[in-house]
Amino acid sequence: MTTAFFDHNSTTALKPQVLDAMLPWLGQACGNPTSRHVFGRNARDAMELARAQIAECVGVQPSQVVFTSGGTEANNFAIKGMAANLSASQLLISAIEHPCVTKPAQSLAWHDWKVATLPVTAEGTLDLQQAEQALNTSTGLVSCMLANNETGALQPVAELATLAKARGALIHTDAVQAFGKVPVDFTSLGVHAMTISSHKIGGPVGVGALILDKRVDIAPLLHGGGQEKGLRSGTENVAGIVGFAHACQLAMQTLQSRSQATQALRSQLEAGLQRLGAVIFAANATRLPNTSFFAIPNIEGETLVTALDKAGFAVASGSACSSDSTEPSHVLLAMEIEPDLARGAVRVSVSDSNTAEEISEFLAALQKEVQRLKGLSAIAA
Amino acid sequence: MTTAFFDHNSTTALKPQVLDAMLPWLGQACGNPTSRHVFGRNARDAMELARAQIAECVGVQPSQVVFTSGGTEANNFAIKGMAANLSASQLLISAIEHPCVTKPAQSLAWHDWKVATLPVTAEGTLDLQQAEQALNTSTGLVSCMLANNETGALQPVAELATLAKARGALIHTDAVQAFGKVPVDFTSLGVHAMTISSHKIGGPVGVGALILDKRVDIAPLLHGGGQEKGLRSGTENVAGIVGFAHACQLAMQTLQSRSQATQALRSQLEAGLQRLGAVIFAANATRLPNTSFFAIPNIEGETLVTALDKAGFAVASGSACSSDSTEPSHVLLAMEIEPDLARGAVRVSVSDSNTAEEISEFLAALQKEVQRLKGLSAIAA
Repeated sequence: MTTAFFDHNSTTALKPQVLDAMLPWLGQACGNPTSRHVFGRNARDAMELARAQIAECVGVQPSQVVFTSGGTEANNFAIKGMAANLSASQLLISAIEHPCVTKPAQSLAWHDWKVATLPVTAEGTLDLQQAEQALNTSTGLVSCMLANNETGALQPVAELATLAKARGALIHTDAVQAFGKVPVDFTSLGVHAMTISSHKIGGPVGVGALILDKRVDIAPLLHGGGQEKGLRSGTENVAGIVGFAHACQLAMQTLQSRSQATQALRSQLEAGLQRLGAVIFAANATRLPNTSFFAIPNIEGETLVTALDKAGFAVASGSACSSDSTEPSHVLLAMEIEPDLARGAVRVSVSDSNTAEEISEFLAALQKEVQRLKGLSAIAA
Repeated sequence: MTTAFFDHNSTTALKPQVLDAMLPWLGQACGNPTSRHVFGRNARDAMELARAQIAECVGVQPSQVVFTSGGTEANNFAIKGMAANLSASQLLISAIEHPCVTKPAQSLAWHDWKVATLPVTAEGTLDLQQAEQALNTSTGLVSCMLANNETGALQPVAELATLAKARGALIHTDAVQAFGKVPVDFTSLGVHAMTISSHKIGGPVGVGALILDKRVDIAPLLHGGGQEKGLRSGTENVAGIVGFAHACQLAMQTLQSRSQATQALRSQLEAGLQRLGAVIFAANATRLPNTSFFAIPNIEGETLVTALDKAGFAVASGSACSSDSTEPSHVLLAMEIEPDLARGAVRVSVSDSNTAEEISEFLAALQKEVQRLKGLSAIAA
């Protein structure tokens, strides 16, 4: 049995063209970029070309790109690194951040930072009025994601950046889910730091970047040999970085066509979901084109994910980026969704490699499972 | 012109068999190990098999292996993570540590830790008597590498661990250079934490591990989704981890033959070097079999490295793992080598892919360059 992969927000396959671009650097030719001999210089040149390519994709200069081991490291680096060079004050994060923003923020409580949470609307988008109010308390740092990984809802980061900067706060955005799915321009967002990741856009796992405003004073998280101008030590993952850049370029070239293709698949999906009585979360928000987050009342999301997996469909329940947890999604709770309904949450995130036929088959399988599970609960009752 | 690669301590080529083992995980089959669907479970199974394989190579249980993005991250994690759960006191590191131990240690000075340096002998090995004396001051944490990356000198880590533990201190060893070149057994070393890295043994760049004693209380460096039992968040680099495990197994299988082969090449090299009047550092220490660190009096190491690179030989000056620096090697200064001689330092680190013919050609090229450079300086004088 083949399984249809509908979990592209958790990770999406390394593209064959990206692997081809990486292969020359997965062997003898690849020196340590710090070395001064020809192997080292070639590796460094490849890495600097990749840096320039990625910089172009987000509208910055190459020197603004700091490579990391992924989105989690970049978010930890941004939050802890910027806070380290500020006096402790208020740190504002949205209520729907990924744990790799929330947990680093909470870790700063030991260093006298006061973490406060910015609420979202029922549609899962940041409440800018409440954010403005929260900024009346002296605030050093703000972090708000660009697109939510669960609902796909886009957040008003540019507007928040304007508010934050008017109060002298630094602002970071986790753009991991948005980058490669919608246009992302660092300068128009007006943030001081932005996280992007490779494996969410068809590049290899284990590479990401923090994009930095040149004026930002940030402390390194990883100390050592002084790579990345001292901001991120450790031997540079040249093959990974080259793959990341290639994936970025491909993502930019296909942005519009993928957006149309995935949005068509999602519309087909959501029409079918509504016929099955599903509640679609953040349905009225401006969302990533590929993401649908829904629940069938009275059916556990976990149960459905397991049943669908057996039926040949890979989907996620709640946040698939996090460790095992049976708690309802914190994103849905922040949207004031009833916990019982939130426990039913299932996420379908498609790519343009998915087909209309797969969606039809998925809807048929879902209908069957829903009937079966409702039958079981009727018997139990 | 082909260039002979004599810089295997800085990085060594990804082995073709390792790449073959990685390829199934560099494409559609690889889910996010946190996902509960079949793609996620398969990825998790591959990762856990790799963890068990690596654990076996260093004599521990799989649960003692925490994957990181490399040696630098593992060293930062060890030093900062263990210190975070201790009251600030003395932190002892050897004078010859890699910057990715020294710099994290120094970063703890902000948290009231007092960093003190343990001296080495003229042969570049830790002075145990002085270490014992230093431990008379209340010490929370000790870190000493297992083999020095520049001289290759093996350090008495097991003996130091006995001393440290008798005083209640935790002890970490950076085994990045030793692992895969000499037998490394976590239990007989008696340390609480040990760093190993993939790309130094023919695995991919961007993967490493911290091996932990189960009783050690360590705080995470990267907070987020809770991967690696909460000790290291971030989507796991499954392809990299599988490659790392494969490289570990290959390294164990070939340990003895590589040791003999590289030691023979080094003996040939050092016999030739002595005829050219070279000073070989740590020559009387027990060293990694593949490493030779030397200087030709009155010739700058940098100049020689550049000339040899043009002649088709990739070697390193001082520590090639670090950022550009014209300071003499801190390792040689700790050995009380005269700064003028230390500035001449060149490191040759071979693997069993090198040949006796390459060594002969290298010695011939070196002789020619030395004569040319001495001629130039005679003219200048």
